[in-house]
Amino acid sequence: MTDPHAPDDALATAAGDALYARDRTAHHLGIRLDAIAPGYARMSLTVQEWMLQGHDMCHGGIMFALADTAMAFASNSRGTSHVALNANIDFLRPAFAGETLVAEAREGNRTRRTGMYDVSIVNAAGETVCHFRGRTYGTGAPVIRDETT
Amino acid sequence: MTDPHAPDDALATAAGDALYARDRTAHHLGIRLDAIAPGYARMSLTVQEWMLQGHDMCHGGIMFALADTAMAFASNSRGTSHVALNANIDFLRPAFAGETLVAEAREGNRTRRTGMYDVSIVNAAGETVCHFRGRTYGTGAPVIRDETT
Amino acid sequence: MTDPHAPDDALATAAGDALYARDRTAHHLGIRLDAIAPGYARMSLTVQEWMLQGHDMCHGGIMFALADTAMAFASNSRGTSHVALNANIDFLRPAFAGETLVAEAREGNRTRRTGMYDVSIVNAAGETVCHFRGRTYGTGAPVIRDETT
Amino acid sequence: MTDPHAPDDALATAAGDALYARDRTAHHLGIRLDAIAPGYARMSLTVQEWMLQGHDMCHGGIMFALADTAMAFASNSRGTSHVALNANIDFLRPAFAGETLVAEAREGNRTRRTGMYDVSIVNAAGETVCHFRGRTYGTGAPVIRDETT
Repeated sequence: MTDPHAPDDALATAAGDALYARDRTAHHLGIRLDAIAPGYARMSLTVQEWMLQGHDMCHGGIMFALADTAMAFASNSRGTSHVALNANIDFLRPAFAGETLVAEAREGNRTRRTGMYDVSIVNAAGETVCHFRGRTYGTGAPVIRDETT
Repeated sequence: MTDPHAPDDALATAAGDALYARDRTAHHLGIRLDAIAPGYARMSLTVQEWMLQGHDMCHGGIMFALADTAMAFASNSRGTSHVALNANIDFLRPAFAGETLVAEAREGNRTRRTGMYDVSIVNAAGETVCHFRGRTYGTGAPVIRDETT
Repeated sequence: MTDPHAPDDALATAAGDALYARDRTAHHLGIRLDAIAPGYARMSLTVQEWMLQGHDMCHGGIMFALADTAMAFASNSRGTSHVALNANIDFLRPAFAGETLVAEAREGNRTRRTGMYDVSIVNAAGETVCHFRGRTYGTGAPVIRDETT
Repeated sequence: MTDPHAPDDALATAAGDALYARDRTAHHLGIRLDAIAPGYARMSLTVQEWMLQGHDMCHGGIMFALADTAMAFASNSRGTSHVALNANIDFLRPAFAGETLVAEAREGNRTRRTGMYDVSIVNAAGETVCHFRGRTYGTGAPVIRDETT
């Protein structure tokens, strides 16, 4: 019995692993790659004390970084590099220190050169914290580099 | 001789100092508050190695965090708290480790309850790296808290 | 047997009818109100020759007008007036003269004073033509005016 | 004495005239092309009774159409076709029947394949009514078609 999705999923996993190994920001922020598939990624982050801004809420830049990272993994999941062109984000409710936030990125559109992704961030209660929508541009470069040459 | 702008500028400076003292993310990222005036803020950041993503460029989340922080200081500069509702950002060119980025936030609109801010980020060569536009909502709370009570 | 949603649906229908009667742009463009419920509206438009721009495709302004109208009806469906603060729209594929476009607006968030709506426009083949996301502000005025006073 | 900008301006004028002749929506809405130069366009519209929505204000779709048209002319002013990918618009104050609105589009960024434009709409009192920011994609086709073949 064969799984028709397996080859693409294997590529997505390999692309995700290669990208994750090089993404220093994701490591520094403690962002985890929980799931990846073609055009999809789920990533999570636990809000640290240093991620609070002057109103004692999780900084919008941290929430954007989580959403943007999820888009990066979803858009690179097909093995060719995409970079962000622009994005918009809506902050629906605050998040606080100690909360774990989960971001899911889904492909809304994909052509050879451009992509559009919707990312939702939810908290542990399942409430939506942010809606993010971003557009990417394909550079043509492979995500998995031949590091031996 | 009196300066008609001095009282507001003094309030802006005091509000900026109060907010900066509490903004743990700005400190962690090494964001500096270089100038603040009513409806205006200029802030800067030097890109660290850990701020690079998987394509070896400054992570979009870091650039967003810098722009969002500049908006926060500009929108809180009048002494009453504003929080971000939503924002959009365009990434025009990449930034790399070691570069210093300067963000300037200017008020495009302000009512009692809402604000709109344009933030540009430029690199040392004076080239625009990002355009950011965000909207804020006034909570009514004072920025400068009476910490003695 | 009682329907717990009936009262709200009746209000939504009444608010939709009142707003539609006054919306001269919707009439001029031939926009139809196909369905309305609390936080939801479905509206349609058939692309006329005069709605084409210089590249012989449906003008982006017409597509935005359809989406914006659907958001207006969804955001006014609870009986209190909301007006648009800002919106973003992605154009995924062109539409041509003679095509009927259907817009569905869904509430993504709602507080007393603000709302967020996602609107998708699809063509007769079921393909998504546009994604629209907009934010509204509640003025506090009733949608249904007492025209007798 | 030669004007180094004259050739480009002549191309911009010719491209603007060619596009305007084909833009049926601009004609229907009464949008005027007041000025065009490389990466720039100024266009105006007088708000008609039919352009009012259910709250008796100029419909957001009409304002978007004016801004989007100005971006189209600015982005096509270099002689190669660009189409809109996405845009965001902020509605700062209402406009009413009889008012003349002026939109100015300026190029914020331009590569071979993509462009970014800022458009402001002001009323007769010089007050800003809308801020619009859009991104375009170059199709490679010439704006001026050889209609004789």
